[in-house]
Amino acid sequence: MNRTSQDRPLCVVDGHAHAWTPKKARSLFRSGVSGPTAGVAAGHTQVNLISVPADWAYDMLLFCQRNQKACPVLDVTDAGAWTSVLADGADLRTDLPRYRVWEHGELVQEPTDVVDRWRDDLVTFLIGCSFTFEWALTGAGVPMRHIEQGRNVSMYVTRRRCRPAGRLHGPMVVSMRPVPPEHLAAAIRESSLLPAVHGSPVHCGEPSVLGIEDLSRPDFGDPVDLAPDDIPVFWACGVTPQAAVMASRPPFAITHAPGQMFVTDTRDEQYRVL
Amino acid sequence: MNRTSQDRPLCVVDGHAHAWTPKKARSLFRSGVSGPTAGVAAGHTQVNLISVPADWAYDMLLFCQRNQKACPVLDVTDAGAWTSVLADGADLRTDLPRYRVWEHGELVQEPTDVVDRWRDDLVTFLIGCSFTFEWALTGAGVPMRHIEQGRNVSMYVTRRRCRPAGRLHGPMVVSMRPVPPEHLAAAIRESSLLPAVHGSPVHCGEPSVLGIEDLSRPDFGDPVDLAPDDIPVFWACGVTPQAAVMASRPPFAITHAPGQMFVTDTRDEQYRVL
Repeated sequence: MNRTSQDRPLCVVDGHAHAWTPKKARSLFRSGVSGPTAGVAAGHTQVNLISVPADWAYDMLLFCQRNQKACPVLDVTDAGAWTSVLADGADLRTDLPRYRVWEHGELVQEPTDVVDRWRDDLVTFLIGCSFTFEWALTGAGVPMRHIEQGRNVSMYVTRRRCRPAGRLHGPMVVSMRPVPPEHLAAAIRESSLLPAVHGSPVHCGEPSVLGIEDLSRPDFGDPVDLAPDDIPVFWACGVTPQAAVMASRPPFAITHAPGQMFVTDTRDEQYRVL
Repeated sequence: MNRTSQDRPLCVVDGHAHAWTPKKARSLFRSGVSGPTAGVAAGHTQVNLISVPADWAYDMLLFCQRNQKACPVLDVTDAGAWTSVLADGADLRTDLPRYRVWEHGELVQEPTDVVDRWRDDLVTFLIGCSFTFEWALTGAGVPMRHIEQGRNVSMYVTRRRCRPAGRLHGPMVVSMRPVPPEHLAAAIRESSLLPAVHGSPVHCGEPSVLGIEDLSRPDFGDPVDLAPDDIPVFWACGVTPQAAVMASRPPFAITHAPGQMFVTDTRDEQYRVL
């Protein structure tokens, strides 16, 4: 989630951004405000967005079904629709802070709305994001090193291949959080109880098992420092469908810009199974 | 799940059926043995099967995504394929005890294999079944009244509409289990921990809330007697996609026969989030 250079985290820009309602956040983004949304409208579910032409929608939905830990689908629109059951009155073309437009797997544009690029055949997938389990980990006392250090979470492309679906294929992307050993059980328990937003970790410990050679050089996001006893814990990451777009090169796609998520009306707790 | 008259429950026919391996069960079914599979190959996940032509597959997959509690998808095949990652060496055309063949929403055949009816464009959905959470409830001490009474679980068509997807629409079907009040918390907790197989109940108590007028007259399965203090507890049911086929009338579909499920190699515990 490399930041678009002109965008500063919204919670830094406005100390009250955590208390915005989802509707207020979306309305600001609609008027052109942009920036990473970590901590914005705290307690409300933020999601990854990916829109593909209808003739790619089955492959995308099947890819998500076959790789559910990385791609937990929370809503799918009908073709051309820019509304979602997750956010009353929202317009998916304007209500994210910033978008990325992809042509044949190449990033061509990073606009603050996509009204001009919208197509009647676009099907939009809203996919769970690890922001939703961080509140649960924090609530259980697990320190969030990247937040302590004022950084974005570290993300890595692994050597694990996703199970392909039609024309879509690609590597699994993971996010990593350093966890002190005494908090490992809580981190695993709390994330396991949120299966709709990545669930339990895919790996704890030695990064090379996933094909990650150097934790200090993430493929997306920022490097995060580990305390001496910290165990690196890896969760499947919602950037995985973007990696599939980059690898599989559909003719056209729109995604959110990294870290600049769609803020829904849904409460994070709703996804906890107990 | 009204029984096909000639088929007796396999655990009644053979007192050792609970100890069959999944491979042995499938091989017997391949050779023509049929009957309800409750209790067969105990501990291994049994699933609902529904095969539709490829041009209906997106609607079916989206219907399942939009109605996940009723239709938790555990695997989807590629078009024409009769193998699944859930069962090594299995043939989906022959390895279920009995099938139902549907044309334009009407039941036309109940054969023990569908080799003659198979088509290269069929996409098969394997969908979680409440058999998978009954072991967990039993393990937590919750009595299973229908099993005590030697009956199939009661199922009802509700007045709740599923969220439609393309051409597919229909009512939510629920299964009901009578639960003594002192076991209600365990029943809710244990099923909640299995979100991939229907998860938490959709309703506890008054049946009329769901549009059910008479518990003693289920739409599928057998009536089950409630003890005086029992609370009727309702879970979304994997018969829901069959009800959608009956309501939406795709030109062709194949399903399992009621209660005669596909026995996979997967262990039930694997779907428990903790």
